Amino acid sequence: MIRLKSFLQDQFRDGEGEGATLVDPTTEEPVATTSTKGLDLAGAFAHARTVGGPRLRAMSFAERGALLEAMSKALYEVRDSLLEASTLNAGTTRSDGKFDIDGATGTLAYYANLGKQLGDRTYLVEGEGEQLTRSARFWGHHIKVPREGVAVHVNAFNFPAWGFAEKAAVALLAGVPVITKPATATALTTFRCFEALAQAGLLEGGVLQLVCGGAGDLLSHLGPQDVLAFTGSGETGAYFRRLDAVVERSVRLNIEADSLNAAVLGPDVEVGDDTWAMFVRDAAKEITQKTGQKCTATRRILVPRSKVEAVVAALSDELARYEVGDPRKEGVRVGPLASKQQLDAVREGIAALVEAGCRVAWRGSAPEGKGYFVPITLLVHDVPGEAAVVHEREVFGPVSTVLPYDSLDEAVELVRRGEGGLVASVYSDDRDVLGTLLRGLASWSGRILAGSRKVADQAIAPGMVLPSCVHGGPGRAGGGEELGGLRGLDFYFQRTAVQGDRALLDRALSLR
Amino acid sequence: MIRLKSFLQDQFRDGEGEGATLVDPTTEEPVATTSTKGLDLAGAFAHARTVGGPRLRAMSFAERGALLEAMSKALYEVRDSLLEASTLNAGTTRSDGKFDIDGATGTLAYYANLGKQLGDRTYLVEGEGEQLTRSARFWGHHIKVPREGVAVHVNAFNFPAWGFAEKAAVALLAGVPVITKPATATALTTFRCFEALAQAGLLEGGVLQLVCGGAGDLLSHLGPQDVLAFTGSGETGAYFRRLDAVVERSVRLNIEADSLNAAVLGPDVEVGDDTWAMFVRDAAKEITQKTGQKCTATRRILVPRSKVEAVVAALSDELARYEVGDPRKEGVRVGPLASKQQLDAVREGIAALVEAGCRVAWRGSAPEGKGYFVPITLLVHDVPGEAAVVHEREVFGPVSTVLPYDSLDEAVELVRRGEGGLVASVYSDDRDVLGTLLRGLASWSGRILAGSRKVADQAIAPGMVLPSCVHGGPGRAGGGEELGGLRGLDFYFQRTAVQGDRALLDRALSLR
Repeated sequence: MIRLKSFLQDQFRDGEGEGATLVDPTTEEPVATTSTKGLDLAGAFAHARTVGGPRLRAMSFAERGALLEAMSKALYEVRDSLLEASTLNAGTTRSDGKFDIDGATGTLAYYANLGKQLGDRTYLVEGEGEQLTRSARFWGHHIKVPREGVAVHVNAFNFPAWGFAEKAAVALLAGVPVITKPATATALTTFRCFEALAQAGLLEGGVLQLVCGGAGDLLSHLGPQDVLAFTGSGETGAYFRRLDAVVERSVRLNIEADSLNAAVLGPDVEVGDDTWAMFVRDAAKEITQKTGQKCTATRRILVPRSKVEAVVAALSDELARYEVGDPRKEGVRVGPLASKQQLDAVREGIAALVEAGCRVAWRGSAPEGKGYFVPITLLVHDVPGEAAVVHEREVFGPVSTVLPYDSLDEAVELVRRGEGGLVASVYSDDRDVLGTLLRGLASWSGRILAGSRKVADQAIAPGMVLPSCVHGGPGRAGGGEELGGLRGLDFYFQRTAVQGDRALLDRALSLR
Repeated sequence: MIRLKSFLQDQFRDGEGEGATLVDPTTEEPVATTSTKGLDLAGAFAHARTVGGPRLRAMSFAERGALLEAMSKALYEVRDSLLEASTLNAGTTRSDGKFDIDGATGTLAYYANLGKQLGDRTYLVEGEGEQLTRSARFWGHHIKVPREGVAVHVNAFNFPAWGFAEKAAVALLAGVPVITKPATATALTTFRCFEALAQAGLLEGGVLQLVCGGAGDLLSHLGPQDVLAFTGSGETGAYFRRLDAVVERSVRLNIEADSLNAAVLGPDVEVGDDTWAMFVRDAAKEITQKTGQKCTATRRILVPRSKVEAVVAALSDELARYEVGDPRKEGVRVGPLASKQQLDAVREGIAALVEAGCRVAWRGSAPEGKGYFVPITLLVHDVPGEAAVVHEREVFGPVSTVLPYDSLDEAVELVRRGEGGLVASVYSDDRDVLGTLLRGLASWSGRILAGSRKVADQAIAPGMVLPSCVHGGPGRAGGGEELGGLRGLDFYFQRTAVQGDRALLDRALSLR
């Protein structure tokens, strides 16, 4: 049995008692325990504020970038061990494990490179500023400085490596120390990441701390310069919004929550053409990858009513190629869900969708007995305007629902019934169709992927989050925004207007 | 007695019953009544969403800018009537009334000009975008589109014209219809603004609505595409943060709340030099302007300990030139507080400061009897590190406290005790002093004004909010950000990543 520890105040520290037990979702065997009981979380905040923050703020962007690059390399060096941990504790196939772990190292490397580009400065100045009154001397700058607090990151179970790394990369590059709290159920991979980072000597000086296990009183210590970034359920997001610290101390909050991501097949796309093939391939991937446990997975597939049967046929053929089973077994492409809790939730979710009038158009097989396996399930609802549940309930597994539409406007309306999503994907080669969909969906989506003939073999799948593009979405999706290159840093900055004698300001700000 | 009305669904509408009574704070005589009882606020939301939003989104930035220009002109045409209303219902001197009303027309004109510059487009595209994969075809843009909801603006009593106009200008330019809710106590000026806008034919089509009086169930109608911007007390801000709609529907929220704004006199500034004179003049202005009822007014004046007596002497001389009295009377520079409630709060606040160890260094006179007058009061606390109340309690009247410091680091620490402010002003001609203060205060301030010799006669006073610079502050100040030129529009936009075939995207987005 592996014993996980937290990493607080520059040391691995073990909590009291046995704590929580982490299992192998393929076998249901216990693999690790972890406890945070009795750990000094107030001390962790103080350490981040008094040691980590000043240390990071004294570093240039290039130096922070070099730290991220070293982190990326340290994780890459233990890639195989991380992939093993991911399979052991999250039930991922090798391919799904890579999606998480290579996503972590890739995002760290991406922000490392941004740091190099930003170079020698320790904070950002927006443009040249501007003259504020009739006097050419009286000048205004806007500067972006690191907040002098702690970035608390509460992550979801489905990305124990990437979730930790994508948030940490942005915070650290901005100059804000991090306390990260992975979901306990799959924390082994995050813990292994911290072991590797400690081994490489990258965890000194309070820049990065790990709470591995229950959150305890972590969030009660948030203060007016701190930020809290959360990925997980809308319910927990609402709980965070009501926290006294958030309400009364203006703690900045970023939430990525539920999302009923939609794919829309344009009416111009004909069965069998390249765009059609891309649509089918993407849909199958987004249903199955990470066993459907991605906040960006496609939950609703909108197709012209006349093409429902063709879509179901093509998708069923494609999905039949995805074997569900032990992720260590050759040929298996879909592992178990990550936990018993997820299994129960997915089963309940499918039942609710069927109860709401969805019919099962295709269902695969899954191992019986031990392991949190669930069959791939493709549903159809014939009157999607009347099926509220389809637009509201995110079933976090290999499940998606095909919804026919009769007009493009109706398709737009149906997508919007999701009340805000992380990503929508639209498939069309027609400028007007694409224009209508972009105009109709943009304000309700954090990201829109447009699939078309000429990028059919070159595009990413819609569920892929690139560090260069924003990730987040309005409404039900939590209203947050992460990544997007430099855009992501704004969450960790205070933007301050500075007004005064231009020459004196420039000297004081070392602008020249 | 004047009867105020709300402006909902393109008509002035009167509520049931007498409702609230608005008074002349100089005489305590009733001047107006208003009620929102029975008004259809759900209908107002629906009207904004189904009529106002589509109408604004179809307009280009230039067209929205033209609307703002027309609004600015329509208000300017009734400037005298607005100044009268301001004196009658808010007790402002002519100069203080201008600060509010010319601020409104000026901010509208500023954003009108930005609209003209943005031109023909209906939404924004950030830069040229970038290549996302190895293929030069697969491209990513970030677009900023208007949210498809309603901008609800809840404003403070102290700026019935500017508060309405500065928020509305930004929302309307972004393409989002507005429902504005002024504080009832001083709503006469806002109502007169709406009369002028209606007269000019600018209120048609649901772009702008007014709730004049109690908010009723206004905030229960907020949905996932709506935004709520609030200026007022931290207590009310906390109430808004806990609203179910905000918590559960990710309603975007911007709060400007309490702020213990500080002025810091640098140790290099000698008694009598130009920077000293600027400091004294600014401090006196920020204590007295609008009878101290400005969220940006200076509440704490930090000076080197050796200069406390000189500062008190100079400030007392300056303050003695400000006569408190009937704002209609020639020579009076400081009117009454705006309401009985404010008078009580200011009296209690002064008592709390004295209780906490502040001594009265100078106090002016004020009329006795009728009217919400309060004397200008300059306090000193000799051990400011021990006086929590001085750093926490915003006394919203012509009151400020001089705080001695022994080192520049201590000055920084004391300012930070305010836990986040809208504006700090620093006075120094020394690059290193200024650098230390900027570094120490930037993350705790929305704005920093640096006073120095060469801009002594050219700078704005620190309490002046320019539309080109951000207005807001971290922590106690609410964590919000308004204005700042185009920056302010982001609150009303959804930023969406759009990924696809570059040529097709460009055509669909009409980029070429």
